[in-house]
Amino acid sequence: MRLNEVVQYLALDMSVSSTVEISGINTLKDAVVGEISFLSDSKYEKDLENTQATAVILPSAKAYLLPKECIALCSDEPYLMVAHLSKFFSKPIQSSNVPPVIGENSTIYPTAHIENGVQLGSGCTIMSGVYIGTDVVIGDNVTLYPNVAIYRDCIIGDNVIIHAGSVIGSDGFGYAHTKIGEHIKLYQNGNVIIEESVELGANTTIDCAVFGSTQIKRGSKIDNLVQIGHNCIVGEHCILVSQSGLAGSTTLGRNVVMGGQSATAGHLSIAPFTTLAARSGVTKSITKGGVYSGFPLMEHKLWLKLQAKLAKIL
Amino acid sequence: MRLNEVVQYLALDMSVSSTVEISGINTLKDAVVGEISFLSDSKYEKDLENTQATAVILPSAKAYLLPKECIALCSDEPYLMVAHLSKFFSKPIQSSNVPPVIGENSTIYPTAHIENGVQLGSGCTIMSGVYIGTDVVIGDNVTLYPNVAIYRDCIIGDNVIIHAGSVIGSDGFGYAHTKIGEHIKLYQNGNVIIEESVELGANTTIDCAVFGSTQIKRGSKIDNLVQIGHNCIVGEHCILVSQSGLAGSTTLGRNVVMGGQSATAGHLSIAPFTTLAARSGVTKSITKGGVYSGFPLMEHKLWLKLQAKLAKIL
Amino acid sequence: MRLNEVVQYLALDMSVSSTVEISGINTLKDAVVGEISFLSDSKYEKDLENTQATAVILPSAKAYLLPKECIALCSDEPYLMVAHLSKFFSKPIQSSNVPPVIGENSTIYPTAHIENGVQLGSGCTIMSGVYIGTDVVIGDNVTLYPNVAIYRDCIIGDNVIIHAGSVIGSDGFGYAHTKIGEHIKLYQNGNVIIEESVELGANTTIDCAVFGSTQIKRGSKIDNLVQIGHNCIVGEHCILVSQSGLAGSTTLGRNVVMGGQSATAGHLSIAPFTTLAARSGVTKSITKGGVYSGFPLMEHKLWLKLQAKLAKIL
Repeated sequence: MRLNEVVQYLALDMSVSSTVEISGINTLKDAVVGEISFLSDSKYEKDLENTQATAVILPSAKAYLLPKECIALCSDEPYLMVAHLSKFFSKPIQSSNVPPVIGENSTIYPTAHIENGVQLGSGCTIMSGVYIGTDVVIGDNVTLYPNVAIYRDCIIGDNVIIHAGSVIGSDGFGYAHTKIGEHIKLYQNGNVIIEESVELGANTTIDCAVFGSTQIKRGSKIDNLVQIGHNCIVGEHCILVSQSGLAGSTTLGRNVVMGGQSATAGHLSIAPFTTLAARSGVTKSITKGGVYSGFPLMEHKLWLKLQAKLAKIL
Repeated sequence: MRLNEVVQYLALDMSVSSTVEISGINTLKDAVVGEISFLSDSKYEKDLENTQATAVILPSAKAYLLPKECIALCSDEPYLMVAHLSKFFSKPIQSSNVPPVIGENSTIYPTAHIENGVQLGSGCTIMSGVYIGTDVVIGDNVTLYPNVAIYRDCIIGDNVIIHAGSVIGSDGFGYAHTKIGEHIKLYQNGNVIIEESVELGANTTIDCAVFGSTQIKRGSKIDNLVQIGHNCIVGEHCILVSQSGLAGSTTLGRNVVMGGQSATAGHLSIAPFTTLAARSGVTKSITKGGVYSGFPLMEHKLWLKLQAKLAKIL
Repeated sequence: MRLNEVVQYLALDMSVSSTVEISGINTLKDAVVGEISFLSDSKYEKDLENTQATAVILPSAKAYLLPKECIALCSDEPYLMVAHLSKFFSKPIQSSNVPPVIGENSTIYPTAHIENGVQLGSGCTIMSGVYIGTDVVIGDNVTLYPNVAIYRDCIIGDNVIIHAGSVIGSDGFGYAHTKIGEHIKLYQNGNVIIEESVELGANTTIDCAVFGSTQIKRGSKIDNLVQIGHNCIVGEHCILVSQSGLAGSTTLGRNVVMGGQSATAGHLSIAPFTTLAARSGVTKSITKGGVYSGFPLMEHKLWLKLQAKLAKIL
């Protein structure tokens, strides 16, 4: 898609060169020459001055912050514009002509479906009904139980075990909203990276990143029916018990424990060695490891004290 | 099944014509000639006088409310009787001899299973392990990711995206209970209708209706691991975040937002433009849009105030 | 694996006979001659004196409690030692050469995968994408909807219905922890037993037992997206509503009702005829049937009273 087509599609009142080819959309920080970026949240304003993006969609009042060579595409609704554009730059489900490469001593059940571009290590067991998407890279000694689905571009480390029905790399839940209340899909072009020795339970879901990677780091163990939103980072050796959930872009430090049905809001940072009791709900970042409970969240000791007081008012 | 066989099966002490053929079970309101209906909840008493049903199972004290031509099948446990009967009128998994009709430019992976009677539009992508049940109708440009299952009779609109592992049209959770504590399945003969431009996340479940349709209206977006009970109606442009749940027969107006792990009881009506914060639990209908939190539910502002007060009693 | 190899693998400072063959790991109570057991929780000390195990991993201070003929394998971290060992005794995914035996009038869709050693009854419907593991035994008139996965050794009774995407017998969430915060998988060698006339909803998960069986007893009905941990016992005619969860080793008596999103901690016992309201969280055993609510749990009447009082402090 050329830049002038972008301008035309977004109905922007400006004229640009018809020879500039746009290769994709990215964050201000990660965009390279040829990519479009956007400013939809003022906390990223600081990234404007050094962006390598060829053009940036942003409110006209912020255009002066861009580097001289960067083209401003001015809009009052930059996030909505990006969502509309994202469809054109979304990756197709199938795009590789390279037949999958399968390591030695790997067993693949006949009803598994492996797309082109996949690299699968040695000693793996890929059971019935498993789907492995385009360009996925899987290490050695990985076991994928029946009906696991791994979307395109994901990376799975050595010795990973994923139980039946889990879904890795499905689209993050991201939409821009129009003035009349419609939701425009922001196509998600990132992936999921699962490091070595991670184990995932059954029917758990891990969304791919909008841009970049959702990450599950080395040695973490995740139970059944857990939800990990897009762009989350789960640190090393975390434990996430069944039916817990992480909203998008939250980072857990190493050895965080999340009890059953606990959850966090998005864009938070949870300190290493934090334990969240069952059913706790986290709405603010946690800077100091410890044991926390409740919703709103508090120190576990305090929560016990509160419950004792409440019992007395009866 | 003839009416006299019904009477015999239910061990009712009455005699009826052996020539009346019964074609199915339905609500008092929707039943047509040839169908049996029932009264198990007094709020439907008003529907007795105009029912078209050929026979109605109901307590004898209510029989006088029936139209003259309608046969009363008197029982103290009408719901249990209907559950027992429902087995005979349940639709089989396979019942069509019409090979599926597939639109132009639709891609179907080899391990997808498409039953007879299916109509699939053009430009669709039906990935590996997908199941599409008997007589399902699917529009154009629909993407079903791996291992999605759609039970018989469901209808899926244009431009719908359903992520891996989601299940559409599984039986609603409906049972009648015997005096000794057994649960008798009420076979579910309705369907699910998903309108255009809806997107469903991974491993989400939407139950079919007992009678009629569970509906997800145009433009609604539903995240991963969400549960929608039988006979729910999700209005246009709703947003349901991960791990939220709707119990049976609840209706959401347009542009309702449900936060993560929020839930509603059954048989409620939620006003348009209502926002339910994460983890909120709704037990009464909401007649006025606004932002609500907590369990029991209250206005979000009030909830914040309550939490501040609770923090002080410590 | 011989006992001297076990000793060497665990780096224990002792010498044992090189002719003793070890066939597996089991609890103190259930171990037979040739098996290794362990003591990791003092509440099982009483089982030491009568264990039939050939050798027991336990703290040296407890070795004197063992029967004379039983060999003490002394360790300060017996649970961790067992976890390390468990890998060698885990059952492979495929291990039988006996072709599956299929009863009369059973329908098996072509993309279902049935391992060797399976016994399937008559009148069953095994739909597309279903996986039935090694040595699974399934009764008569069982319906497995698309993409159900049943891991090895599970037993499914007559007239069971399992809806699409549910997973039976996936590994329980069990790990031992090292001093540097790594989690060592305790391989799970037990199974799941589902008795007659049980119905399971869609995308529900039931973990296999570490040793022995997770059990769902006769006539119980379980909704969508429910989690049942390893070694749980769900009594006869229980009702578990959507998104509820049981942590490991909890036992429900008969006719327990669990509302939507309710949950229990592990190792609890819930009295027969207990009703847990939606969203309730159980952290202690319940010895007397009744209606309970809230988290922390209390009698439902008390919970209503508490909410009324809280409304007044505003």
